[in-house]
Amino acid sequence: MDMQIAGEMTLHVQEKETIYDALKRHGLYLAAPCGGKGSCGKCKVRVLEGQVDSRGYGRMQKEERAAGMVLACQSTLSTPLTIEIPKESKLVLGGRIAIAAFKDPAAYLTSYGVAIDPLVKRLSLRLPPPSIQDNISDLERVKRAVREISLTMNYSYELVSTIHDALREGNWDVSLSYSKHSDVSAEALSLFLPDRCKRRFALAIDIGTTTVVVYLVDFATGEVIDIGSTYNSQTRYGDDVITRIVYATEGGGMDDLRDAVVGDINTIISSFMDKHTISSCEIDGAVIAANTTMSQIFWGLNPASIREEPYIPTVNIYPVWKAQAARLSINPQSPVYTSPAVASYVGGDIVSGILASKLYKNPELSLFMDIGTNAEVAIGNNEWIMTAACSAGPCFEGSGIRHGMRATPGAIESVKIDPTTLELSFSVIDGVAPVGICGSGMIDAIVEMYTTGIINQKGIFFPGKSPRIREGQEGLEFVFHTDNVVHRDIVLTQVDIENLIRAKAAIFAGVSLLLNEVGMPLEVLDKVYIAGGFGNSLNIPKAIMLGMLPDLARDRYVFLGNTSIIGAYLALMSDELRREMEDIASKMTYVELSVVGGYMDEYISAMFIPHTDMTRFPSAVNR
Amino acid sequence: MDMQIAGEMTLHVQEKETIYDALKRHGLYLAAPCGGKGSCGKCKVRVLEGQVDSRGYGRMQKEERAAGMVLACQSTLSTPLTIEIPKESKLVLGGRIAIAAFKDPAAYLTSYGVAIDPLVKRLSLRLPPPSIQDNISDLERVKRAVREISLTMNYSYELVSTIHDALREGNWDVSLSYSKHSDVSAEALSLFLPDRCKRRFALAIDIGTTTVVVYLVDFATGEVIDIGSTYNSQTRYGDDVITRIVYATEGGGMDDLRDAVVGDINTIISSFMDKHTISSCEIDGAVIAANTTMSQIFWGLNPASIREEPYIPTVNIYPVWKAQAARLSINPQSPVYTSPAVASYVGGDIVSGILASKLYKNPELSLFMDIGTNAEVAIGNNEWIMTAACSAGPCFEGSGIRHGMRATPGAIESVKIDPTTLELSFSVIDGVAPVGICGSGMIDAIVEMYTTGIINQKGIFFPGKSPRIREGQEGLEFVFHTDNVVHRDIVLTQVDIENLIRAKAAIFAGVSLLLNEVGMPLEVLDKVYIAGGFGNSLNIPKAIMLGMLPDLARDRYVFLGNTSIIGAYLALMSDELRREMEDIASKMTYVELSVVGGYMDEYISAMFIPHTDMTRFPSAVNR
Repeated sequence: MDMQIAGEMTLHVQEKETIYDALKRHGLYLAAPCGGKGSCGKCKVRVLEGQVDSRGYGRMQKEERAAGMVLACQSTLSTPLTIEIPKESKLVLGGRIAIAAFKDPAAYLTSYGVAIDPLVKRLSLRLPPPSIQDNISDLERVKRAVREISLTMNYSYELVSTIHDALREGNWDVSLSYSKHSDVSAEALSLFLPDRCKRRFALAIDIGTTTVVVYLVDFATGEVIDIGSTYNSQTRYGDDVITRIVYATEGGGMDDLRDAVVGDINTIISSFMDKHTISSCEIDGAVIAANTTMSQIFWGLNPASIREEPYIPTVNIYPVWKAQAARLSINPQSPVYTSPAVASYVGGDIVSGILASKLYKNPELSLFMDIGTNAEVAIGNNEWIMTAACSAGPCFEGSGIRHGMRATPGAIESVKIDPTTLELSFSVIDGVAPVGICGSGMIDAIVEMYTTGIINQKGIFFPGKSPRIREGQEGLEFVFHTDNVVHRDIVLTQVDIENLIRAKAAIFAGVSLLLNEVGMPLEVLDKVYIAGGFGNSLNIPKAIMLGMLPDLARDRYVFLGNTSIIGAYLALMSDELRREMEDIASKMTYVELSVVGGYMDEYISAMFIPHTDMTRFPSAVNR
Repeated sequence: MDMQIAGEMTLHVQEKETIYDALKRHGLYLAAPCGGKGSCGKCKVRVLEGQVDSRGYGRMQKEERAAGMVLACQSTLSTPLTIEIPKESKLVLGGRIAIAAFKDPAAYLTSYGVAIDPLVKRLSLRLPPPSIQDNISDLERVKRAVREISLTMNYSYELVSTIHDALREGNWDVSLSYSKHSDVSAEALSLFLPDRCKRRFALAIDIGTTTVVVYLVDFATGEVIDIGSTYNSQTRYGDDVITRIVYATEGGGMDDLRDAVVGDINTIISSFMDKHTISSCEIDGAVIAANTTMSQIFWGLNPASIREEPYIPTVNIYPVWKAQAARLSINPQSPVYTSPAVASYVGGDIVSGILASKLYKNPELSLFMDIGTNAEVAIGNNEWIMTAACSAGPCFEGSGIRHGMRATPGAIESVKIDPTTLELSFSVIDGVAPVGICGSGMIDAIVEMYTTGIINQKGIFFPGKSPRIREGQEGLEFVFHTDNVVHRDIVLTQVDIENLIRAKAAIFAGVSLLLNEVGMPLEVLDKVYIAGGFGNSLNIPKAIMLGMLPDLARDRYVFLGNTSIIGAYLALMSDELRREMEDIASKMTYVELSVVGGYMDEYISAMFIPHTDMTRFPSAVNR
C-alpha cells in the first residue's frame, strides 16, 4: 500500500509493516530510543489522510491523539495514507558530534604518517591463457601470478569454486582481492572481472548499546562517502547490556538480539546501496567497533559469562572472519575485522577510541573518558595504559530521565537560572520548540539549581524556593517549559536528579580510583579526552562544578565525539594502524573497580555536588 | 511399507523409494553398473509375495519376467513385499582385489618407516578455571594452553561460536582437534568434551569413475575397521568421464552428478555409523583420491575445460577444505584432503597409487599401470616420473561388452580352448553358474581363440572354424555358455573383440611412447606395478600374448589392486606421507599422448594380436 509523506515522497509499505519500519527501510529514521516497542512515545507521526490500525499509543497525550498523532512503531496501514513527520520525531544522530579533525577522516588518517593500506587489497592478474605447453590448472595459474607478492595465500573453497568461470569470463584478466594475516600469510578473498565490481567500498561500523553508526568509505581513497545511523533495535529488549545479556541467556533471545542489530546495519547498508547505486559485491570489507557485549552479540557468541563473576568474555582478540558468518549483506567473502576488547566492560569501542585519540602515542600522561550508554575511563601514555569501567548507566543519553533525550534538535542543551531573580532561560538545539533535555542540559540544570539554592548538595529540592517546583506523579519536579497547546510540560524530577548524581559519582569515582592505582596526582594529566555522545555541547566548567569531571583547566580538555567509529575507520584503512590497535589492547591493563579497595568510599564521597571533599574542587570553592 | 527379504531381514521402504534405493540405504548393494537407470538389467530381484509398480524391465528376458523377476531400480512397492535376491544380483566389490601387503594397511604404513601422525590431531587442554586475577577471555585461555605446541593456530568462526559453552560444559577440561597447514601454522577444528566423541574415526575414500570405495579407519591406531563400496551412481548419467562432463556442462547436470557421488559416500558413511554405533562427530577427517574429473565434480568445480583443448583442470593441488563444504555427513569441521592431480587425465588416484606402490622410492626404473575405467601409466624412479593417460575406455571392467562384468561371483575368469579338439573349458568365480565374462576372462578368451585359429591377428572370426561361432544380432559371436532354463547365453561378439583390441592397443601404445620419450629400452624396467580392478585374476602371460602388457618376465610384475584407496589411507595417517604425495605430484611430468609425434603409428601397430612388430614380443614367437 502506498504512503505519502506530505510535500515529500511516496513510498510503498509492505503488508503488516509498521510505518516506522517502512520509513526505516527507506532511510528515514524516527527517534525511538525504546527500539520500537511502543513505550517511549517518541516516533509520532500525524495522519493527514487515510486510516491506520494502531496497537497502542505509549506515553502519548490525549491532545496529541486528538490532533491525529499516532506512534509509527505501533501502526500499520488500513488504507493508503498521507502523513506528516513532526520535526521532533526525526532521528538526527551524530551530526554535532565530530570534532574538526574528524570532519575529514581521510585527512586525519594522514596525520598518523601511514600510507593508505586497506584491510582488503586488490591485485590485478593478467594471466597468460593456457596452452598445451602451459597447461597448469586454473588455481596454479593464479598462484603463479600471485607469487610476485611473496605471501603464502590461503584459497577458500568459496573462492576456488568461482575460479573456472571467472578466469574465462574475464578472458584471463581479473583482479584478486586479499587480506593479510601477517607479513607472510594472507587470505585470498574474491576474483573480480574487469567490468564488474570495479568500485570498492567498505564499512566502518560503530555498534553502540544505544546507537549504530556506519561510515560508507571509498576503499581506495579513504574518503567517507556517506554516514548512516540509527538506534540499536536491541533496545526493545533492554536499555543496557546487562538486561540484554539476561534476555539473551535466560530469555533465549540471543537470535532476536543478533537479528536486531545485524538488521539495523543491513538496513543502513541497503539505503547506501540505493542512494549511491552500489551493488553488494562492491562493498568488500568492514571493521566493527563495539563494547564487549555488543561485539559478542553481533557475532552470535554467548555473552552469559560477561555478567557473572569473574566477568569473562568469550573473545577479546577476534580472528578476522567473513561477512557471510556475520550475516552482513555485503560481498559474503569480505573480511570483517572486530576491534579487540580488553575485558568484559572495556571493549573494542574503547580500544578504538584510544587509537583515535592518539593518547597511546604521547609520552605525557593523559586521561580518556568515553561517556555514552556507559562510561569507561583510561589513563596512560605511550608506555602503559590502565583502564576501568564505571557503572554510570545511560542517563546522560536521556534514558531513565523523564524528559531526557539525545543532543538532537529540540533538546534543551543549556540552562541558566538568574541567581537573584531565579528566572530561568535555556537554549534549544536548532532553536525549535523544546522537546526534552539532553545530557549537557541536565548538567547545566543541576549545577544552576544547586548554585541558586533550589536543590541542596545532595540534589534534594527545597520545595518553597521556586514557583517552578511542583508536586508531580513521582514526587517533586522542576518545570522547565509548559506547552498549553499540546499540554506537554518538560520537567526534571527528584528521581531524575538522583539518577544523574549517581551516574556522575560513578564516573568520578572511576577516575579517582584509577589515578590512585597509578599513584599520581591529578595535575600530571596533560590532556583529558572526552569521547562519546556529549561532544561539543558539554560545558566543561559546569561538569566540573557538578563533580563529574576532575577539576582541571579547560584547555587540557579535548572533545573528540564518537572515537569508536573513527578508530574503526582508521583500522579499516591501514594495516599498520590495525596492528597498533592490537598493541593498544594488549598494553591496556584492566582494573576491576568493584574489587579494588576503596571503591564504595570513593563513590559515596562523590554523591554530593560537587564532592564531600571540597579540596578536590578548588575551582568550585573559588567561583 | 515393509519389505521382507525371504529368510533374512525385514526393512522399511519409504514412499516412492525404489527397491534398489531401499536396499542400498540398508547397506545391501545390488549390481547396477548403469547406476540405476534401468538399462543394464542387472539388479534383478524376485517378488515372492505382494505387488510392485515397475516403470520398466531393461534387458530382462521374458522368461525372467515370467519367473517373477523385476528390476529393483525401476520398481516401487504397491503393497508390502517379500522378495528374494538372486546371487548374481548382489554387488561384490573389491573383495578379491587387495594384495597381501594391503590386507593390513596399518602394517603396510609402518613399512614406510613413518610414525602415525594423522591428518587430524588432538590436544588435551586442562585449563585453569578463570578468576578475577586470571580473567582473560575464553579464546585467549585456549590460545595460552595451545602455545606449548608452537603453532600459529587459526580459529574459525564455527569453532569459536562453540567455545563458551564447551569450556563450561567440559568444566575446563576439553580436547582440541587441529590439522597442520605447515610446520608453523595450523587450523583449530573442534572442541570435544571428555565424555563425548572420544573415539576417533576417519575415512579414506576412493572415487572411481565406476566404483566408490570407503575405508573406515581408527584414527588413533590406523586400523581399518570396515570397508564399504558401491557403484558410482553418476553412472546413470554416463559411463565415462567425458559423457559426464558433457552432462555437467551442457546438460546443466553438475548438481545431479555431485549429489550422486556425495550421496553414495554418505550412504556408506551412514551404514558404518549404524553398524559400529558411531556418531557423526566421531568421524573427523577424510582423504579423497580420485581422477581429476571425479575430484572436481566431488567438490562441485566446473569440469568443462578438462575435455577441451588444452585440457585444463580447475585445481591440481587442492587446499584442505572442510567436510561442510564437501557436504559429507561427518563432523562438519573435519578437514578433507584431496590427493593432488598432475593433469586433466592423470589425477589424484594415480598420484595416490604411486605413493602406495613405492615406485618413487626406488633408484631402479619401474612402470606403474592403473587399468580401471581408463588406463594411466607412469615410468620413473626416485628422481623423476613421466606419466600419460591412454584412452582405453572401461571395457575390461565389462562396460560396452555384451556380457561383460566385473570380477565378481558368476564371472567367467579364465578360459581354455584345446588346440586339437577346440573344446572349450572355463572357470567361474566362486564356482557358481556363469553370469558373464570379466576382464581376465576376456583376455584369456581372445588369446585362446587366436592361438587356436578361431580368430585372426586382427581379431576377425573364421566363421567355419568352430561350431560355437554363430550369427548373432550384431554379427558373428562366439558362444561360451548356453542356458536352456532361463535362455540366457553368454557370448563374445565380433564388436566386443574389436573393442577389446582397441583398448589393449591404446594401453600398449601409451607404454611404448612413454618409454620412447625416456629413450630407454623395455629391459631396464625393474618392476611393473599393476593397479586397478584386475587384481590377482589377470593372467600376465596371456596379457602379454594379447599384446597389452610389455613382454617382460613374470617375476617383474607386481599386482597391487586398488592403490588409489591405499594411497588415500597412507595420506590420512601420516603428515609426512601426505607431503611425499605432494612431492610425487610435483615431480610427475605429464605427457599428452595426442600431441606427441608417433602416437597414431604406435596405436595402429598395436591393433594386432599381439603386435605388427613381433620382435617386440619374443615370448609370443617362441611359445
